[in-house]
Amino acid sequence: MKLHITFFVLLLLSAANGGKILVWHTDGSHWINMKPVLETLVDRGHQVTVLVPSTSMFMNSSEPSRFRYEPFNVSVSMEFKKKFIEEFLLFSIYEVNHMSYLQIYNKFIGFIRTNMDYFLKFLHRVVKSETIMKKLKKGNYDVLFADPIYPGSDLAADMLGIPLVFSLRFSLAHNWERMCGQLPAPPSFVPGIMSKLTDKMDFSERLWNVLFYALQDVVMRNLMWRELDKYYSEVKGTPTSACELMGKADIWLMRTYWDFDFPRPLLPNFKFVGGIHCKPAKPLPEEMEKFVQSSGDAGIVVFSLGSMVKNLTTEKANMIASALAQLPQKVLWRYSGEKPKGLGSNTRIYDWIPQNDLLGHPKTKAFITHGGTNGIYEAIYHGVPMVGIPMFGDQPDNMVHMEAKGAAVTAKLKFMTNESLRDAVNTVINDKSYKENVMRLSRIHHDRPMSPRDEAVFWIEFTMRNKGAKHLRVQAHKLTWYQYHSLDVLAFLLIIDLLLIFILFKSCSFCFKRCCSRKKTKRKAE
Amino acid sequence: MKLHITFFVLLLLSAANGGKILVWHTDGSHWINMKPVLETLVDRGHQVTVLVPSTSMFMNSSEPSRFRYEPFNVSVSMEFKKKFIEEFLLFSIYEVNHMSYLQIYNKFIGFIRTNMDYFLKFLHRVVKSETIMKKLKKGNYDVLFADPIYPGSDLAADMLGIPLVFSLRFSLAHNWERMCGQLPAPPSFVPGIMSKLTDKMDFSERLWNVLFYALQDVVMRNLMWRELDKYYSEVKGTPTSACELMGKADIWLMRTYWDFDFPRPLLPNFKFVGGIHCKPAKPLPEEMEKFVQSSGDAGIVVFSLGSMVKNLTTEKANMIASALAQLPQKVLWRYSGEKPKGLGSNTRIYDWIPQNDLLGHPKTKAFITHGGTNGIYEAIYHGVPMVGIPMFGDQPDNMVHMEAKGAAVTAKLKFMTNESLRDAVNTVINDKSYKENVMRLSRIHHDRPMSPRDEAVFWIEFTMRNKGAKHLRVQAHKLTWYQYHSLDVLAFLLIIDLLLIFILFKSCSFCFKRCCSRKKTKRKAE
Repeated sequence: MKLHITFFVLLLLSAANGGKILVWHTDGSHWINMKPVLETLVDRGHQVTVLVPSTSMFMNSSEPSRFRYEPFNVSVSMEFKKKFIEEFLLFSIYEVNHMSYLQIYNKFIGFIRTNMDYFLKFLHRVVKSETIMKKLKKGNYDVLFADPIYPGSDLAADMLGIPLVFSLRFSLAHNWERMCGQLPAPPSFVPGIMSKLTDKMDFSERLWNVLFYALQDVVMRNLMWRELDKYYSEVKGTPTSACELMGKADIWLMRTYWDFDFPRPLLPNFKFVGGIHCKPAKPLPEEMEKFVQSSGDAGIVVFSLGSMVKNLTTEKANMIASALAQLPQKVLWRYSGEKPKGLGSNTRIYDWIPQNDLLGHPKTKAFITHGGTNGIYEAIYHGVPMVGIPMFGDQPDNMVHMEAKGAAVTAKLKFMTNESLRDAVNTVINDKSYKENVMRLSRIHHDRPMSPRDEAVFWIEFTMRNKGAKHLRVQAHKLTWYQYHSLDVLAFLLIIDLLLIFILFKSCSFCFKRCCSRKKTKRKAE
Repeated sequence: MKLHITFFVLLLLSAANGGKILVWHTDGSHWINMKPVLETLVDRGHQVTVLVPSTSMFMNSSEPSRFRYEPFNVSVSMEFKKKFIEEFLLFSIYEVNHMSYLQIYNKFIGFIRTNMDYFLKFLHRVVKSETIMKKLKKGNYDVLFADPIYPGSDLAADMLGIPLVFSLRFSLAHNWERMCGQLPAPPSFVPGIMSKLTDKMDFSERLWNVLFYALQDVVMRNLMWRELDKYYSEVKGTPTSACELMGKADIWLMRTYWDFDFPRPLLPNFKFVGGIHCKPAKPLPEEMEKFVQSSGDAGIVVFSLGSMVKNLTTEKANMIASALAQLPQKVLWRYSGEKPKGLGSNTRIYDWIPQNDLLGHPKTKAFITHGGTNGIYEAIYHGVPMVGIPMFGDQPDNMVHMEAKGAAVTAKLKFMTNESLRDAVNTVINDKSYKENVMRLSRIHHDRPMSPRDEAVFWIEFTMRNKGAKHLRVQAHKLTWYQYHSLDVLAFLLIIDLLLIFILFKSCSFCFKRCCSRKKTKRKAE
């Protein structure tokens, strides 16, 4: 065993003879999640170069950093981007509550269209810029590492002729993983992401899941693939399927694991590395530690609605404040809006909190969260039960996962009263099952052969060492959908069966006729 | 990263506070493959107790060992077992060549029946023996570790109320993995084991694969599951599905990996740990090393037909000897029969050879093998191209895998001439592509996050630590086959569609009639 450990440690330390990694641009929590892997890659002697657009909320090429940056100009202004996000949040959190299904659908489609248009503008400034592409080619990169949420990395990897590693949280109803990555996802026990279903479904839920998959596939086909196919074909000068190019990715690093997600079929080139960014807690700033310690045995509650939602309506903020005021715990609330009325002496508001360090603090009893994957993973890592106030995107679905695993209670912002929020926090603190369940998830999270970050780094380095990972790629990629499901074979067997039945029937009827006619002839003769 | 490595090393070394592992009886290469894992478990402070039947070819409870033994008497004599194996080998290697398909089928079915009967006799002496079951219950084992090729471990685990970990090479057409373990295996790109197909199939091959799956499923249903269901139900006193019990296994350690097998869908509780028994080569005995060194630049060829086949017919042995005599290499041949005529001075015959040490010797140029998985894995581990002379069981299929990956040439014993064998050996030595391909497989084998043995040990210990691994188990286990494939949902949608079409049609025809009758009335009125 010692020999194997030594071999393993050597392998981990050996790759230090520097590879060159190109990182596709991204933003928001996607960038937060990518950074720890890139930091580790730099620690291990690799050169990391990040493509950074001139319009980015989280990436900044002028900041001093251990990464190299490859900036590129985009024709989308920061104002436009901020306005788009604000509008999207307003729609997702508030407007959606007062709209008909048709209005919601139309508005949602509008957002996807704008988003797609804006993504293509970004992509255009990379693959159609001679300067950038020349630089990237000259860079002789060993691998392109990308979160495919910002499309085009597959096209760029193809043009540069280098392997591609994806880091992905999810696509709508697993459309990309299923259709392009060939990941099996039987709708009977793999709930579509954002369907708010679990892996235990009754008939009506399975029906809804099938329809959900089908609907999302139609939406993706019409709003994304069609546009991308057109653009890719134009750039490459030959009919090109964007989904096929995406399917050429060597490794898909999926940012979930069986602590958070429901177990499901996978493929050899899909690695589940949820919780990449998690790390032990560091000590808190002195002032904050004092406040935390003042909570005594009651402990503290950590409250954040994530990096996107800065403010709430005054009414909602006041209601939340008065709910928190009723808790015996001290509360640390990340909030940038005006000070709400009725804020209790037990609650302190902060522009920013060291969320991971707070969640890892022994005094922490509960986490009130918007239900983003990063925050949930920190809570799982440290074993803190949750109260979810999901806002948009995958957040409601994420909270369904945590509720199904008995580690959280969800409060819907629309219907939330100060009593229901207070009761929810009290429940996850006082009902011991929540703590027990989240501790079970925490054990699952920690008790695996390799930490998620090391596993992600291993497969990126593997792809560099071996110039790809073709041996992990299933032949399903070469089959049409009806071949994949053996429908042509079944149709053939059905035809053979029918033919046999037909021949049997004809033979019988022929014999029967012969028999009858003989009898008739006999009778006539008689 | 250092922190993670330390954590990992600590984790690997931590489990030393001894669990108790019960090992199900097995035999032949299955026992060879299990032993290294058990040795490692003992190294790590666990107590390993092995169930050993009084009739066993490879297990011996009276030998001094680091394992504890739990012997049990069986009503099958050693003579019967040896005779059965001899008859099976004679049939598989020689008789099969002169038989019609119907004769082969009947004989094969006969063998399966006898085998099943003999397996049940073994099982009976465990689960129906009060003494043994009392001892096992008193043992307070943390896990039952079993190769399911010898049935009943699932029943015993259920009766003892302990978790179950399987170590399995394969079942016929993946019947157990698919039907009981819920492992997805689309026949369009997952060739059935023993079908001699690869993952690249044209229409006729896909057709054959579908039929092969279906045929094996029928055979398994009639010859195995029916018998087992009856026996399990009798033992438990309640209707019991043996397949359902098998599906309750916490972890399936599959003894292949993507160096040997074709990539395919998997499940979170299926771990692919092919090559568990592989290890670095040790120095050869002095006399043997001298002979090997005398080969000069030409190098050596290692030749073994495995532990089961001791002799060949005189005719075949002579033919092989004269083929080997024509090689420029020195040949080390494991063979217990009479000295063949025409044996060259370059060939030495041994009753037993240190196969792994020879394959790891720098002078080794090629390996002539019967194509057993253990031998193939040693060749992959050390990067030695192969010539296969497959005999029976999975061996022909294994060689198809190695041929498809460009690491071997297969010679069929039936048609083999001394020229064809000589040419095959010369080809894999002189055509550089074979060495390159097997070296590629060797890199795939070695370049993974954890050695297969460590991974197997990790998951056995995980199961002990966590009293099972329920979080890796898909909900598909709770679905019927038509629910799994959403056929009930599709049927419902079809009915709704047909109803809608019917209503539309009726409405149209009603309107049409109304319209016509009005016109008629109008015309009459006119």
